[in-house]
Amino acid sequence: MIETPYLLFLGDAPDQLSAKVAQGIKDWRPENAVGQFRMPGCAADVGLKDMTLAEAKEAGAKTLVIGVANRGGLISQAWKDVLIEALSMGFDLASGLHNLLAGEGDLVAASQVAGTTLHDVRVPNVQYPIANGKKRTGKRVLAVGTDCSVGKMYTALALDTAMRERGMNSTFRATGQTGILITGSGVPLDAVIADFMAGAVEYLTPDNEPDHWDIIEGQGSLFHVSYSGVTLALIHGGQPDALIICHEPTRKHMRGLPEYTPPSIEAVRDMALTLAQVANADCKVVGVAVNTQHMSDEEATAYLSEVEARTGLPSVDPFRHGAARLAEALENL
Amino acid sequence: MIETPYLLFLGDAPDQLSAKVAQGIKDWRPENAVGQFRMPGCAADVGLKDMTLAEAKEAGAKTLVIGVANRGGLISQAWKDVLIEALSMGFDLASGLHNLLAGEGDLVAASQVAGTTLHDVRVPNVQYPIANGKKRTGKRVLAVGTDCSVGKMYTALALDTAMRERGMNSTFRATGQTGILITGSGVPLDAVIADFMAGAVEYLTPDNEPDHWDIIEGQGSLFHVSYSGVTLALIHGGQPDALIICHEPTRKHMRGLPEYTPPSIEAVRDMALTLAQVANADCKVVGVAVNTQHMSDEEATAYLSEVEARTGLPSVDPFRHGAARLAEALENL
Repeated sequence: MIETPYLLFLGDAPDQLSAKVAQGIKDWRPENAVGQFRMPGCAADVGLKDMTLAEAKEAGAKTLVIGVANRGGLISQAWKDVLIEALSMGFDLASGLHNLLAGEGDLVAASQVAGTTLHDVRVPNVQYPIANGKKRTGKRVLAVGTDCSVGKMYTALALDTAMRERGMNSTFRATGQTGILITGSGVPLDAVIADFMAGAVEYLTPDNEPDHWDIIEGQGSLFHVSYSGVTLALIHGGQPDALIICHEPTRKHMRGLPEYTPPSIEAVRDMALTLAQVANADCKVVGVAVNTQHMSDEEATAYLSEVEARTGLPSVDPFRHGAARLAEALENL
Repeated sequence: MIETPYLLFLGDAPDQLSAKVAQGIKDWRPENAVGQFRMPGCAADVGLKDMTLAEAKEAGAKTLVIGVANRGGLISQAWKDVLIEALSMGFDLASGLHNLLAGEGDLVAASQVAGTTLHDVRVPNVQYPIANGKKRTGKRVLAVGTDCSVGKMYTALALDTAMRERGMNSTFRATGQTGILITGSGVPLDAVIADFMAGAVEYLTPDNEPDHWDIIEGQGSLFHVSYSGVTLALIHGGQPDALIICHEPTRKHMRGLPEYTPPSIEAVRDMALTLAQVANADCKVVGVAVNTQHMSDEEATAYLSEVEARTGLPSVDPFRHGAARLAEALENL
């Protein structure tokens, strides 16, 4: 668990896109951030108040979160000057970078001297159990994709917002680095050892109140040969009561796999449901979330109508239209 | 790669079953073992010549393989006395025990002094790539199970033997500790980090001659919620041309999961084939391997006839009848 609130470190971000972790925190958990910290040359701005470390400390910030990707895979000396100062002022640090904070001797030393904590969210810090498959109380919904990077995290976060707006009892459960930084906790599933993947998902979504929904962030795709095992561990460890199929209709091939054609929504629906019913015989597919960012408004509306007619399922773009209809489908389940 | 030939260490095995790794080596790769080493009180015997360390060294043994499970999860001082002497005489050590050799300071020290190697086959020693899904040359067959521990490794090893007997060009590819110790190499797939599982299987089964078959040892089951992700990584990383369904018909529930009923052969056949065709559209199911150890000869024969009639696939118990019909099915593919 990463202590909130955060100060968001944007460093010398070369462009807005490189700050997408910070943007995600600002968009989905604005109450978790008191401000942003930008260095000279920073080209990103997530719309929070610019603060010095001292101002953020004064405003109650507990953790400096690295909200930007680093260039060249190195943590530069310019970054380190700030990070070490922050550690010495009592900030914890949190990062999803490939280069681990714990691999940098000067950061480790500074945190030890100050008694502060380095959070590398890319690395599990729990010894997860082997899954036992026992039925848990409470309800769970999982986002499953036709491919990687089709909007599963976005859909889950939008669904969480829509469910709260309806007064439903829900928790977003992060399974990747960005989601963990946004919400402050979760399981970095792609870094878990094979035997413990499904157990990690069980650990993430324990027994809960009967009306509580865990909204589980999906990963990969059953049809993406590089990562499909991770997806199946989510389906079996999550024992979902409901699935939402996530799709990006303009993609020509599977992400990173030029030889592989994306599957249809129906193929993913049928395969995911059959597998999900191994762990939960009552599982249902309740909706389709389409990422229409590469379509005009008219194209998007027409495509969503077509999908809805084909599948009989509420079909929305959560970014354009919100996830209210998906939340409603869960409420009616 | 573990250097052969081996001396098989049976220690003070309490019974024959605890020496199943040594028995597997003796059964499947007798040419890999010069003899067995037994301590006072050893109740196991795999039928090899008893040798002292010096006799085995004289006979050319390169590696002392721990072919027995240890009691209480500890490597006893009595074992260590032998292991340290072996290291100092120039033997490498290989082990699939949960307690790692590399975690025992006295063994590490002895191997460093002698310049010998400790092989903990439970732990990957390679940085596997992320799977790229590219079509590879050569052919591959994968054993997929209705459950864990239904005879997938046995089937694969028996198939390897049968294919060699027919003059076919094949290699058994181990994906678990026992298989790795039997053949001296492989991938301990259950210990690989999630993102790299399918890539590890690609690494294990690289491009090969057009008529060469990799016989890939299966793990888990698509229907076993604890380990299904590992199974799917094998199906997608292995991009098999052929699947063999492995089944144990007397099992009442999935191994370790009292609430889960084993699936039918047909359910596994259909699910595994659909998923395998994502990576290899030409994949076929070519046979069924049934573990009939809990059936009489008559029951086994009747059951196999029934399965063969139901599925239209050659159905054999490789232990009772050998795997010749499965090899023939692959030859005819």
